[in-house]
Parts: sequence; structure tokens; C-alpha cells
Amino acid sequence: MSTEKDFAELTFLPDRVTVKAPAGETVLDAANRGGLHINASCGGEGVCGRCMVELRGGTVDAQPGLYLSEEDFAKNLRLACRAKCSGPAEIFIPLESRGDASFFKKAVQADEKVTVETLAPTVKQACLILQPPDQADNTADLDRVAAALSDQGLTDLYVDLATARTMPEVLRASGFKAKVTVSLDPPINDRAAKPFGRIVSVAPADDDESYYALALDIGTTSVWARLINLATGEALPSVADLNGQISFGEDVISRIVYAGRPEGLKRLQLQVTNTVNKLLDRLDEQVPGYRQRTYIAYAAGNTTMSHLMAGVDPKNIRLAPYVPPIAAWPTLRASQIGINMEPFALLKFFPSVSSYVGGDIVSGVLASGFYEREELTLFIDVGTNGEIVIGNRDWLTCAACSAGPAFEGGGVKFGMRAAPGAIDNFLYDRNLNKHYLGVMDNVPPSGICGSGLINVVAELFRAGVVNKQGRFETDRSPLVREGEDGWEYLLSPAAESAGGKDVVLTEIDIENLIRAKGAMFSGYQTLVEAVGLEMGDLQRVIIAGGFGKSLNLENAITIGLLPSLPLERFLYIGNGSLSGCTLAALSGPMWLAANDIKRMMTNFELSETPGYMDKYMATQFLPHTDASLFPPMGD
Amino acid sequence: MSTEKDFAELTFLPDRVTVKAPAGETVLDAANRGGLHINASCGGEGVCGRCMVELRGGTVDAQPGLYLSEEDFAKNLRLACRAKCSGPAEIFIPLESRGDASFFKKAVQADEKVTVETLAPTVKQACLILQPPDQADNTADLDRVAAALSDQGLTDLYVDLATARTMPEVLRASGFKAKVTVSLDPPINDRAAKPFGRIVSVAPADDDESYYALALDIGTTSVWARLINLATGEALPSVADLNGQISFGEDVISRIVYAGRPEGLKRLQLQVTNTVNKLLDRLDEQVPGYRQRTYIAYAAGNTTMSHLMAGVDPKNIRLAPYVPPIAAWPTLRASQIGINMEPFALLKFFPSVSSYVGGDIVSGVLASGFYEREELTLFIDVGTNGEIVIGNRDWLTCAACSAGPAFEGGGVKFGMRAAPGAIDNFLYDRNLNKHYLGVMDNVPPSGICGSGLINVVAELFRAGVVNKQGRFETDRSPLVREGEDGWEYLLSPAAESAGGKDVVLTEIDIENLIRAKGAMFSGYQTLVEAVGLEMGDLQRVIIAGGFGKSLNLENAITIGLLPSLPLERFLYIGNGSLSGCTLAALSGPMWLAANDIKRMMTNFELSETPGYMDKYMATQFLPHTDASLFPPMGD
Repeated sequence: MSTEKDFAELTFLPDRVTVKAPAGETVLDAANRGGLHINASCGGEGVCGRCMVELRGGTVDAQPGLYLSEEDFAKNLRLACRAKCSGPAEIFIPLESRGDASFFKKAVQADEKVTVETLAPTVKQACLILQPPDQADNTADLDRVAAALSDQGLTDLYVDLATARTMPEVLRASGFKAKVTVSLDPPINDRAAKPFGRIVSVAPADDDESYYALALDIGTTSVWARLINLATGEALPSVADLNGQISFGEDVISRIVYAGRPEGLKRLQLQVTNTVNKLLDRLDEQVPGYRQRTYIAYAAGNTTMSHLMAGVDPKNIRLAPYVPPIAAWPTLRASQIGINMEPFALLKFFPSVSSYVGGDIVSGVLASGFYEREELTLFIDVGTNGEIVIGNRDWLTCAACSAGPAFEGGGVKFGMRAAPGAIDNFLYDRNLNKHYLGVMDNVPPSGICGSGLINVVAELFRAGVVNKQGRFETDRSPLVREGEDGWEYLLSPAAESAGGKDVVLTEIDIENLIRAKGAMFSGYQTLVEAVGLEMGDLQRVIIAGGFGKSLNLENAITIGLLPSLPLERFLYIGNGSLSGCTLAALSGPMWLAANDIKRMMTNFELSETPGYMDKYMATQFLPHTDASLFPPMGD
Repeated sequence: MSTEKDFAELTFLPDRVTVKAPAGETVLDAANRGGLHINASCGGEGVCGRCMVELRGGTVDAQPGLYLSEEDFAKNLRLACRAKCSGPAEIFIPLESRGDASFFKKAVQADEKVTVETLAPTVKQACLILQPPDQADNTADLDRVAAALSDQGLTDLYVDLATARTMPEVLRASGFKAKVTVSLDPPINDRAAKPFGRIVSVAPADDDESYYALALDIGTTSVWARLINLATGEALPSVADLNGQISFGEDVISRIVYAGRPEGLKRLQLQVTNTVNKLLDRLDEQVPGYRQRTYIAYAAGNTTMSHLMAGVDPKNIRLAPYVPPIAAWPTLRASQIGINMEPFALLKFFPSVSSYVGGDIVSGVLASGFYEREELTLFIDVGTNGEIVIGNRDWLTCAACSAGPAFEGGGVKFGMRAAPGAIDNFLYDRNLNKHYLGVMDNVPPSGICGSGLINVVAELFRAGVVNKQGRFETDRSPLVREGEDGWEYLLSPAAESAGGKDVVLTEIDIENLIRAKGAMFSGYQTLVEAVGLEMGDLQRVIIAGGFGKSLNLENAITIGLLPSLPLERFLYIGNGSLSGCTLAALSGPMWLAANDIKRMMTNFELSETPGYMDKYMATQFLPHTDASLFPPMGD
């Protein structure tokens, strides 16, 4: 039996959130239960050192170690994932250890325009003016509704018990004028089969024709949601927030590891559904009471995210030969997995191609439309897990490459996500040997984000401060100096920085960036070669995903992340995953096309593809060992 | 806040079952919570007087009234539905007030033989020997299973999340040798549509090919269950019990009324599912662990029973124009409505034709097979609600007639169900002016069951003791005497009877029987005339249902319940409803045929059919006003 004495009261600063924690629980877990994010790239394994917190009062049970020096320990710093609750404590979570959701809270997707030629949603709403029953015709209510739907071309109908239960009351209260919603559901393994019609809801007819679908992009880092009016085809402004799972690891691998712990899977599912539910609450401000009229959600995420959200154990995704449990998803009830929608609302996950090419990529390809065009196209989503698709309307190949976390600020001494305080732009004046920083929201810099890292390294490379090997030319700039991790470049002195520390770029940071861009580039090369083509044959390069928005194309080519092609061939499509969900909601044929894309794609496991490793090794220079791939751009 | 003092401890005799009852709860409800049946034909409305109990000690809060005389009150008799708990009490439930389940506990359906020409269950089991995934083929688990099923001709597949979740583990634990169960599910409103395949279960392959379906007959009075081995086509012995709802009223109308009370519907659903669950426990003795391998239940009941079991409000069944919420049922999960089967197990209710011609009749017609034969056939199920079907392979008409409870012992002074102690046979010796009684189980008689009533009245009519008008010829037998309700016939003197009272037949009893048989007979006439035929055109009369088993055909013709036709035209098919469920489980085409039967049937609302009332009035004699309909049989 637990008694009051077994619980410690923890107060988290600066938010002053108080959490009762059982003795022995980690501070990370306690913070999480209190709704507070603490970075933990490694999923709480104690090996990333990102979850540093400061003990401002009371006690926790912790010791110094590999990721917590004696010196830091003496300064009352603790690793939240290793520190165990043992009594009342006040714990300060510094900015660097926080997932800053404020950026996302304000964010609204810029390019919202998604249109289809013909509005033909998979969810149909039929207004039925039924003949009320009498002695001459006392057909059962459900038969009456089904017959009227058949007259409107909706055959092959199914209904669930909950809907059937409420039907008699609704029909009588409305004088047998009903608005019936039917979802057309194709089978999982046969595109040609006629979809069956699921009667999702029977409601009294009214004058408001609006009904809605939800588009959900379930990203490893952030989650986006958008309402779509299926009567008008209008897509409303999207809203976003950090994926609550981020407290349990920043990349999919650490999430999968966490899911293997007792209750881990359940907890991760709860985190992401809570995030979605918070977004859904915000949508209520756009269209009050929309849930009553929202019948379906289309969700796209990478393979791991889909499994975690559905509560399906993702462990085999991580184990060779990387077999996901589910690629083509059955239609679910949203409420069944904890999404706060009406019981009738359905949820369809976009199909995945493989363990690391997920529904978000299929959705992005759908949104980009190149799968039905002639031009040879490279489609990429840059991130810790980078996805690459090459093809056109005749064929599609794809691969995932493990770029590592550099693009998202991981493995980088002052790396951070693209949030206020992140250095995202950089100009180097070779004459004065000084630089100009661009910082997000114009506040004192606290670190450097992925696109900032590319811009800094590209500019320093062009200035000759960084050489082909990614090393500093130590005599080319007075800002290059020796630091605790070897040579480093001083980006911002302590006095001008938010954290009160010098913000620097180290050679290790550059190495990590070179590894990341090399993994991507050798991926493109492998796919291009596999189909007997060359990089120059690419007529279009489509960049999807949050990272692409802030990407400086010239700088990305300079460091060898993007192929050296005329800039007009590049296209940024924003959150393609969310756009694809929107299209599927607006159009049944689009949803079928998504399933076609999934089936068309030939997946390459790069690590198993001959020649990939050689190509990768050749990328470990700036921009590349093979200079012919990167002719001078006229700097 | 309740305290211990607000609860009264009631002890029910002779079972000595103790129930804690809150003050104010009725004795009927308390007994029910204790698992004891007390007759309450009227559903606890206080208007049938069948729930008489004896207060042997303590107190209950009750008063004499219309259905409880001052004299009975003084003898400590109480109506269980009116008596409210007010303190500790000992309450004896006399035999006449009990639903005697012991008869059913022993019963095993005699005619178990049900066969189909081709074993083709709607639930298929496929043994899949899958190629385990490797680097060359890392298709998702579900895609792999679906592709292998497609190779076996099972396309258009759907799967639920629960099955998909467990699939990866099962595949790996079994070395990718899996037994996959697929249920083929046709839509509710289109017979021609291809059924979709629902992957119900994925289990490791083993050597045991047996898998099962359940047949369930949900009767107003009794519930029957039977296991069917779908691998061999073998139907196992059925088991039966009283429908637990019987404590809340004996006929469908009183159940519908009860369902309208607060919590009434929920309670009735719980009663019947508890009854089914008890039967399922007993089936475990036949095939231990069968639930693991039982994937579907086919259930047939009258329209009200189906709705109550599914928890759908039946109120409109009772209100003109008698529109049931559901006629063709969607496929349910058995567990969803409280049936104790595995989560994967499905449940299909037989479709109803109308509010009073239910799935049990459709199932019975299926079992009898006349819907595909040329002979003009009358199909009847005799009971409080009598159902009549007339037709052949080209057309089917049906009607329900409200016969009243006489056939089931209701409205009859010493009426009882066919259970031990019921007088079921009777011979009158005109020379000696005495009779011989047949009593079920050869115990002292306590009452007379429905078939016994027919036999007694027919025999007394032939002997001239009862005349055409259903009155006693008071001088024809010394056993006719004046009693408290007018003239009566002494069946068994108190000294020889179980209840210690004279068991008598009254003129009111005979009136009720004449009303009941007249309602049935005028029903046949109405349907026969509606299609331009005559009674003599009937080539076959099929009698289904529990009542038919003990029916003496000649006596039933003598009183005018059955048409006067050569005896060889009559056929008794037993529990046709249970047999039809068995057929549907064994054969998909049979299940489709059941749905065809439902669609083929033209339903007549007798009360709305011109001429029905005149015909009914003409039946209010023995055997009928029109003697030509009943030529002498050569008595």
C-alpha cells in the first residue's frame, strides 16, 4: 500500500508546475506527467546528455557520470532521465532542455492552397426526404434508409450498431428528413474492388450543408492538423504543435526503443493522441462544434509514427529485415485509438511503402503530383530519417537514408530546432573577417538550427575558413580558435548570447553535417544509377517537409546536400504530407491514387544495395570527392 | 450516502438464496438480482397476478388490491412485483410462480440432424505457409498475409486493428505458418454484391483443423444454443435454458413495455445475454476451450428478441404502424453486446420480415426448405404470437397473429408451461364418465400446459361435455360443477394434485383457447384467400417451434386450430429456428437464401386486412361456424 510519504512533490520552474512523483520515478517521467517537455534525444537512456536540468532546491537521487561531469554536478545540474525523485524538490528546466512549443503555437502553414479538379470526397452526405411509414408500408427504418440510399447510387451498404440504434429516434424527430453520411471504403488489397459503403451517421436534415474531414500530419517532431469543409472543398488554416512523444526521444529509433519498455507503447500512443487532441480543441475556435459534423480523418506519418499512434508494436521496424506490421491500414474509428472525435468518426492512415518510407512520403508524392507527370523527378524530405523518391508517372523508386540528427540540430554542440533564438542565417565578410548572424525572432542567439548549420558551413567554405575536408583553415579567420573539443569557430560570444555561453561551431559539428548530407546525396545517386540514369537527367527536384522551407538552395548545393542543377528545377512544396491528406479527403480518386503510389513504389534498402557505401564514402568532402558533380556556380 | 441500515436481507425459499435489497426495491427485482425467476407475465405492472409469493417471516411493504384478495393477503400471500423490501424477510416462491428451468436443463433437442449438400461456411479457415521475410522481400506482415489469401481466392479483404496488432507476433512465433480465419460478409442491401472478407483471426497453424460456429435460438421463453464444427459439418447436441427475461414479462409486449422503463432495455439485454453466456459455459463441457476456435454465431429470434439482445430500443415495434428499427442486421462482434465469446467472434442476427414476423421464422422457413419447392405450403409457429407463412418457391406471404397466452398456459386458471407436473394428455371415458390424465414426468399434476388444454377440450368436445359454443353441457358429466368462476370441470381433486388444490378447467379457459385458435385459423384463411386459393389447396403444413412437438394433430383439428387436411400432409420440424441457424453457419449460400426469404416475404398486417375480423368472429366456435371447413374425421 502506498502512503502519502512515498510521494515527493516536485515543482518545475520556470512554469511552477507541481507534480506528485512516487519515490524512484525519474524527473523526466515526472515532468512528462506534468505536461512539460524535456529534450531526451536518446529516449531516456542516459546517453545523450540533452535533458540537463538544474536542482534549485530539495533533493533528487543522482550521481555524476559520463554525461554529467563532477563540475556540472557541483553546479546542481542533473540529467532528468537519470535523476530519481526522493523528496520534495524545485527543478529548473533551462531553455536548451525544453521543447519550445511556442513557435508551433503561432505557426500557421503558409501555403494552404490545395485544390482538386473535382470535389468527390470518400465521405458522401445524402439528404433523404423519406416517405414516413404507414400501414401500407411499414418497412424497417434501416431498410427504408438503405433503399433511399440505393436510389442515390449508394449500394453495398454496411452499418454499425451504434448508428442503427439511434436511427429510429432521429428519423421520427426529423419527420423522416434525414442527413445520412456514408463513407466509401475500399478493401486493403484490391484497388479494382467496389468500395463498400459504411453508414457513418444519420442526423436530422438541416440547412447547413457543411461537413468536415480532418487532415493530420503526424511528424516525429511536430503534428499538424487542418479542417476541410467537404461541402465546399475549402481547406481551413492548419494548426501545429510539438509531438508530445518528443520527451521520449527525438528520432524514430529512440521512440521504438522506448516503446519496448513496460507500458512504453501505451505511453507513446497517449502522448501523440494527446497532442492531436489539443490541436483538435484549437480547431474548435475556427469552427465551433465542428466535431458533430466531422466524419473522417486522413492521417499521414512515417511508418513508426503510424504504428505508435495506432498502438501497434513497432519493434520489427527496427530489426532486420525491417518488416513493418502494417503497410496498408484498415480504416479505424478515431475514438478507438484515443482521438477525441465523435464515435462515428473514421480514421484512415496513409499506406506506407516500407519500414522507413512511410505514409507521409506517399502523401507528399500525392500532393506533389509528379507521379502522374512525365518529367523525371527527385522528391526528398530532409531530416534525421531522410526519404528519397525518384521517378515519374511510369515508375517510382524510393529509399530512406539515416542521415543522423544534424539537420534537426542533433549531434551539434549548440544545435537546436528551428525556434526563436536559433541562428538560421549567416554572412561572412572576407575583408573584415567578421560575420553577420540571422537569428530567428531577432533575439540573442542560443544555438544553431539545421538550415543555419548549412548556411554557416557553406559560407565559411566559400570564404576558405572551412576546407574540403571540413576542417578549419586555422589561419583564415580570427574567430577560429582552439576549444575543449578541438578547433572551433566563435559564432556568438557569451555576452551576446542567450545562454550566457560562447556559441561555437566545432569541427565535430561539421563532420556530422557532412555525414548527414552525404547520406542523402549518395541515396539520390544510388537510385538514379539503379535505373540507369544520371543526376543531370533530373528535370525536377521537389523538396517537402518543414526543413525545406528555410533551406537556402545555393548553400545546400554548395555543401553537396542537393545536386548541382539549375535553381529553377527546384520546387518547395511545404508540408506535402498534410497537403496529401487534404487531397485524399477531398477526392476518393486521390485516395485510390495514394494506394496506387504505395503499390508502384520499388523500395531500396540502401544499406543492402551494392555500391551505396562507396558512394557514401565519396560524399565525405565539401561538396564531394568528384568535383565534376558540382561545377562552379559562379560565386 | 447509503448505510448498511438501508438494506434488507431477503432469503428466498426453497432455494435459500439470500439477497441484500435496498429499501423500496420490489421483491421481484430482488429475486431477479439473486438469479431467481418469478413469473410476471405483465412485466411487473401488477396486473397479471402471476408473481404470487408467500411471506414466511419478516416484513415487506404491501397491501391487498385487485390482484391480491384480502383473504390471500391474510394468508401472507404477496405479489412480488408490488411488495417492497422494508426489512429482513423470508419469502417462499411457490412452484406455480417459478420459471422451472430444470426441464430445460435436462432437455436436449431430439432432432439434431441438419445437413447441407455442400459444406461452404461463410467463415473460411486458410492455412498459410508463408515465405518468411528477408532482405529481398520485406513486405509488411499484413500485406504478406493478404497476398497469400488472395492466392487462395480470398480478395476484397478488410481487417480490424486488434487482429492486425497481434499478427506480427503470431507470424514470428509460428515460423510464418499461420491459420487465418476470414469471414465473408455480404452487404445489408444487395444480394448480388460480392461479400467482403473480414480477417477475423490470425493464429499459429496447428494440426487441429476443427473450428466452430454457434447457432443461437433466442426465444421469448427459452434460449437454445448449439456448437457446429465447421471443418466437419457436425452439429453437436443443443442445450437450452429459460430466457432470463421471463422474470420481466412472459410475452414480447410486456418485454417492450419493460424496456421503456429507466434502465429497462439495459436490464433486459443483460438478462438474455446472461442466459446465452450460461449456455456457452455448458458447451465448454462438450468441447473444452471451443471459444478459442469459435468465430461466428448465427442467432435467430423474433424481432423483439433480436432488438433486446442487441440493445436497440424496440418501442416502435409495438406502436402502429409497427416499424422495427432493424430488419436486416449488420454483422456485430458478439462481445460488443455482452456475449462471452472471444473479441474476434462475430454475431449475425437472422433478418426479420416485420415487427411480428422475425428472424426465427425466416430461419425456420430456411430449415424447412419449402421456399424452394413447388408444393403450396402452410408454415406455422404456434404461440402467444403465432406466425404464419404460406407460399412456395415462387412467392411467400406471412402474417403474425396475436393469439394470446393460452397456448403457453396464460389466461388459463391452472395454466402452466410444458414442464413436469403439467397435464398434457387426457382421455374421457363416456361410459364410465371418468377420465385418464397424462402428466409430464408422471408426478402429481399442478396445472395444464397448452397442448394439454387442446387435448382436454378436444376430448371433452367429442364426448359432448363441451359444446360448439365452448360451454359445458352441465348434465353430461358428474365432473362438471359450479365453481367460483362459473361452470368448471374437475381435472384433478386437491388430494391428488401437487398444489393441494382442485385443478379445474373453466369456461373462461375454454373461451381463451377458442380465441387463440381462432386467431391462428383466421390468419391462415386470410393469407390463403389473399392469393386466391382455398384451404384444401394446401399440400403441406409445417409446424415449427417448441409447442408443435407435443401437439396432437387430430385434437388440434378437432378444436379448429389446424385446418382439416389429411394427416400425412402435416410435418413437425422441431426447433426450425435453431436448425436454420445451423444451416446458415454451414453454408454461405444458405445464409444468402435466408436473406432472399426475408426479401421474398409479403407481410400482411392482419388487423389492417379487410375481412380478417369477420373471419376471426366465425372461428369463435368448436371447431368453426362453417362446418364445411371441418368435415367429420370418422371419430
